[in-house]
Parts: sequence; structure tokens; C-alpha cells
Amino acid sequence: MYDQSCSLPILEDAVITLAHGSGGKQTQKLINEVFLSAFRNRHLELMHDGAELVLPSNRVVFTTDSFIVQPVFFPGGDIGKLAVTGTMNDLAMCGALPLYLSCGFIIEEGFSRKDLAAIVNSMQLEAQANGVEFVAGDTKVIERQTGKNLFINTSGIGVKMVDRPINPRQICPGDAIVLSGDIGRHGMAVMAAREGLQFAAPFMSDCASLVPLVQALLHKSIDVRCLRDLTRGGLATALVEIAEASEMDLEIDEGAIAICESVSSVAEVLGIDPMYVANEGRFIAFVPKSDAEEALCSLRQCGMDGASVIGYVGIQTTDPKVLLKNGFGVQRRLYRLSGDQLPRIC
Amino acid sequence: MYDQSCSLPILEDAVITLAHGSGGKQTQKLINEVFLSAFRNRHLELMHDGAELVLPSNRVVFTTDSFIVQPVFFPGGDIGKLAVTGTMNDLAMCGALPLYLSCGFIIEEGFSRKDLAAIVNSMQLEAQANGVEFVAGDTKVIERQTGKNLFINTSGIGVKMVDRPINPRQICPGDAIVLSGDIGRHGMAVMAAREGLQFAAPFMSDCASLVPLVQALLHKSIDVRCLRDLTRGGLATALVEIAEASEMDLEIDEGAIAICESVSSVAEVLGIDPMYVANEGRFIAFVPKSDAEEALCSLRQCGMDGASVIGYVGIQTTDPKVLLKNGFGVQRRLYRLSGDQLPRIC
Repeated sequence: MYDQSCSLPILEDAVITLAHGSGGKQTQKLINEVFLSAFRNRHLELMHDGAELVLPSNRVVFTTDSFIVQPVFFPGGDIGKLAVTGTMNDLAMCGALPLYLSCGFIIEEGFSRKDLAAIVNSMQLEAQANGVEFVAGDTKVIERQTGKNLFINTSGIGVKMVDRPINPRQICPGDAIVLSGDIGRHGMAVMAAREGLQFAAPFMSDCASLVPLVQALLHKSIDVRCLRDLTRGGLATALVEIAEASEMDLEIDEGAIAICESVSSVAEVLGIDPMYVANEGRFIAFVPKSDAEEALCSLRQCGMDGASVIGYVGIQTTDPKVLLKNGFGVQRRLYRLSGDQLPRIC
Repeated sequence: MYDQSCSLPILEDAVITLAHGSGGKQTQKLINEVFLSAFRNRHLELMHDGAELVLPSNRVVFTTDSFIVQPVFFPGGDIGKLAVTGTMNDLAMCGALPLYLSCGFIIEEGFSRKDLAAIVNSMQLEAQANGVEFVAGDTKVIERQTGKNLFINTSGIGVKMVDRPINPRQICPGDAIVLSGDIGRHGMAVMAAREGLQFAAPFMSDCASLVPLVQALLHKSIDVRCLRDLTRGGLATALVEIAEASEMDLEIDEGAIAICESVSSVAEVLGIDPMYVANEGRFIAFVPKSDAEEALCSLRQCGMDGASVIGYVGIQTTDPKVLLKNGFGVQRRLYRLSGDQLPRIC
């Protein structure tokens, strides 16, 4: 059991085995060949229990997210890209510039090593493009079920880009609600991939870093009060959460919400409301009405042509409501999603 | 699907369902009733995408660990206690005082809600006892297989307790290697629980916070060079890792390593070498020979009666070896664990 002949060449394993999670020789080899070879930096090279960091400021934001999306590759991305953008985006939503990430892998025995390497490389590409480093990691292996499961946790540290707080409590009556682009792509792309649906006009997940967009908004004189990305539960859930946290009514104009034709079609086929579908590269910003035009310009300059003002903040109330007005002037109240519409989309 | 009648009382669910991972109403309810009710603090109450923290210093340590132990309850602890001590201990091993933790839960559909609540409460108890707060969290649900699986990722931030670096590169020839107590309890306790083994003298996992022990060592004038906890791969793997990272030979006296009678017996029954068995409350400290006695006193004052000097650092070399000398003066070389001895023990 304790290998004493290290001189023989070891054939590259095609799939992950329980031994890769033992903490011994095979774990070490996997770390070197897959994780270190992609993420290599001075912190990881120390191979210590944690990363020693000297931060540029002591005002930090800390967040965590686990990813279980199935399939792990989907049009427009993969679980690795998602795990990096998801956590960076959470930091950006608090007005922080992401600096350091950790990654915890739970891999199913039988998972393809080639796929794992592709996912890890995709993580590094996305991190590098955003000036972020992986400084801590962990690998565990669980027994085989389907051989298709990979779970990734990413936690992140960022430093605040502005001194003022950015959260639901800063929202004021009359604030404009700016949506950064069309909704529903991520959830529908994953569902279409899972169900093997084919479309005349295929579409891709919106999975992307929101860091440059938030940087652009914060570098202008726009008084951003609150930011929220539209992940699990979609736009509707994000609005309800913010209405509750700010204790404000929100009045939304349904016609101002962009949804692309292909997403509408798939949603109709699957009987799903795109308002509740997860996005991984879309957010809403709450800004003073007078700053709304500049916010839109700023987003459009970053390539977000579909950005729009979708509504306004109403009055402060103890029973905060999200009211959606359609083209005929009819209002309906939006609630949180009840039950499970789309499992394992992030 | 979108529940519009919130006034009816909802029966408490006995098990976790996919809806608890949807990001909608049931997720919210689970967060409120299980996670927030245990972890509640001003950061979590904001229900934002990340936690804004003002750290007492910008010299921080950041680490992550995922936990997949099976069974989730074992003699001396549970996966929750393990997830908290494991990450705090990694921070302590870098000479940092743990301050903030994140937790990412991946729960299998069908997992007992009562067990989940017990585990979450155990996490909070352990965190509180160490002055640490949970400030960020995430919950995902995967499809049912056995209904027994729960995976927890904890990431942590701590601030350095001393200015000097504490890592393998600080080790010098002649340094003493201090072991904090007897080895092998955690892995053997989990295996005994999994196999349903009964013993005349039952024993418990050593799962515990190492923070007070490290604080005690660092608050004295002991020049601690390197610390390493003895988790996956056990004492043997930790020694090999440190020999390689420091490029130093390590000479270990087998007779100085404490192993309790019951652990030896189970290890013998299962054909396992305790040197490779995971511990979750034991560590080694590398200190100058002249500080070794004070280090031992300090550990014993904290209740670690089994603390001992188990060996010394040899010469610097390009082929660093760990040499174990037995009672007859015979030396054998220790290698990393090859293959998988004990799956899912942490």
C-alpha cells in the first residue's frame, strides 16, 4: 500500500478514482498535474494549509457559492466558468473588486480527467481575465454513481471600490431600476442542453463576469444604491428579495424587460416563466432617477445594448410588493418561486 | 407554481427536497429556520450577496476545505464540527487567528432535516467557542441517491497573530519536531462507526479546535517555525510533505509517537497503519531545540498530556527523506500514502 518505488513511469489515469481523494500520492499527482499546472502562483506553490495575503485595504467583502450544474458543459460555458463568474459577481454586487478566490472540488469517482482539466483551465482563463488569483484549494472524491458529477465551491475576497455601502437598505423611493440586459438565457441554455432540445436559432448562456460593468458604473459619479445579480430564482425572485430587504414597493414595467425570441420559445415549450429563470451575467442596479440615463450609457458602452430602465421604487411599506404592469396596464403581484422549477442550473 | 397564499401554515418538512435548493420560497424558509436561526448575526441579516467586513489588519490568511465524511455523525463529533475545526485549524497552522467563516452546503434530497439542524447547531457551537462568525453561506440540493449525503465547504479568513512567516521554508536543521498528542483517533473512530465495530474500550475522534493551543505557543517566546495539522494521510504524509517543502531530512523516533491501545487494536483488525490515519485535532510544530521544552509545557498546560518531541530535523538535501527509527534502532523510510486506505473520513 505504501509505494516505495517512485521510479516507474505512471500511466495517466483517464478517470478520477477514490485514491485521488486520499490525501496521498495520487492526490499530490492530481494537484500537480491538473490544479497547480493551471492555477500556479507564489501562494499555491508554498503548498501550505492557507494563503498568506497582504490586502490593499482592510475593508473587504467575503462570499461563497457552490455549483452543481448538470450537464457540466453547456452552450456558452461550463461549471468552471460559472463557479468563477458566480463568486466574482457576488463580490461585485457588494461594490467590491475581486482579488482572491479559493476552490473546493468534490469529484465523483469515474469523472473524466480530461473534462476536469478542461474545466480547471476554463476557471483559470476566467480568473486571469479578471485579474483574480486562486490562492487556496481542496480536493475530495466521492463514490461513483453516474460518473458525471462534479461540485465546485468557490469563495472569494474582494476590496471595496467605493467607501459608501451598497445594499438594499440604501434604496430610496423614486430610484430607477436598471436591468443590464435580456433575461433567461442561462437557465434555458442549461435546460435545452439537458433535454437535448434543438432550435433553429440556438442561444447561449449569458454566463459572464459583471466586474467590468460594475467598475464602469462605480467609476462614474452615479450614486449606485444597490446591485443584485439575477441567479437562482431569476429577476422575479431578486426583485422580491430586494423589496423585502428594503421594505419598499417596486413597480416594474413588463414591456421594458428584454427576453430574446429563442428564450421565449423554449420557455413556452417547457412551460416556464422566464421571470423566474436563472441568469449568470445579468444584474439590476438601483440608482437615483437623475442618474438612470448615465447608468444606461455606461452599460451600453460596455456592450450591454439591451440595458433598460425596467421600473421604479415606490413607497416604503411594511408589506412590500413587487408589482408587474403589462402592456394593457394590468398589474399583477410577483411572489417568490414556490416549488422547484429548474433543478441544478447553477 | 407561484404560491400566492402565504397565510396557510406550512407543515414542517421532515426531509430536504429539491425545492429547498430552488432559490425560491422553500430555500428562503430553510435558510430562515435552520441556518439563520443558528448563525444569526448582523452580516447574515442583511441577506446580501456577500459580507462587508472591516478587518483588524490587512495581513490575512485565507483557506478552504470541503467535508464529505460518512457517516455524518461519529463518536466525538459530526461533519459540522469537523467543517468548523478543520478550516479554523488550517488558519491556525499559518499562525492566524480565525475570524470569519463561510459555509456552502450541498445537501442530498431526502436528507433528514432534523439531522441537518443538529449539524448546523454543532457548527455554531464550535464557531462561537472560538470567537468566529459565519458571515456568508450558500445552499444547493442534489438528487436523491441514498438520502444520507451532505457535503459542507467552509472557507475562512483569519489575521496573522505574529509578524514572522510560519511555513516549511522557515525550518532549520536541528529543529525539534513536537507532536501535540496521540494519533489515529479520528480516522479509526469514523471507520469503526461505519463498520459497526464494537469495542471493550470505545474511543472518540480527536476532532477539536487547535486555535487555543497555537495561541498558547505563539504567546510565549517560542520561535515557532512551522505548524501542520495531521489530517488526510496522517502523521506520515504530513512529515513527507514538510520534508519535501523544506528540503530537509526528518528523523523520527517511532517510540515517541503516542497511539492509544484501542486505536492500535482497531488498526490491527482493519490492517491499517495508524501513521497514515487522519487526525482532526493533532498537529506537529517545528521549533528550535532550545524551545522544545517550553513548547511541551505550553501544550501540556492546555491539557495535551500526550504531547512529545518525536524527532529532529536533519540536513538540507535535494532528496529529502523521512526516516522512522524503531525501538531496535532499525530505520525505515516513510513515503506518501499510495492508493486509498480510508475513503471519506473528512
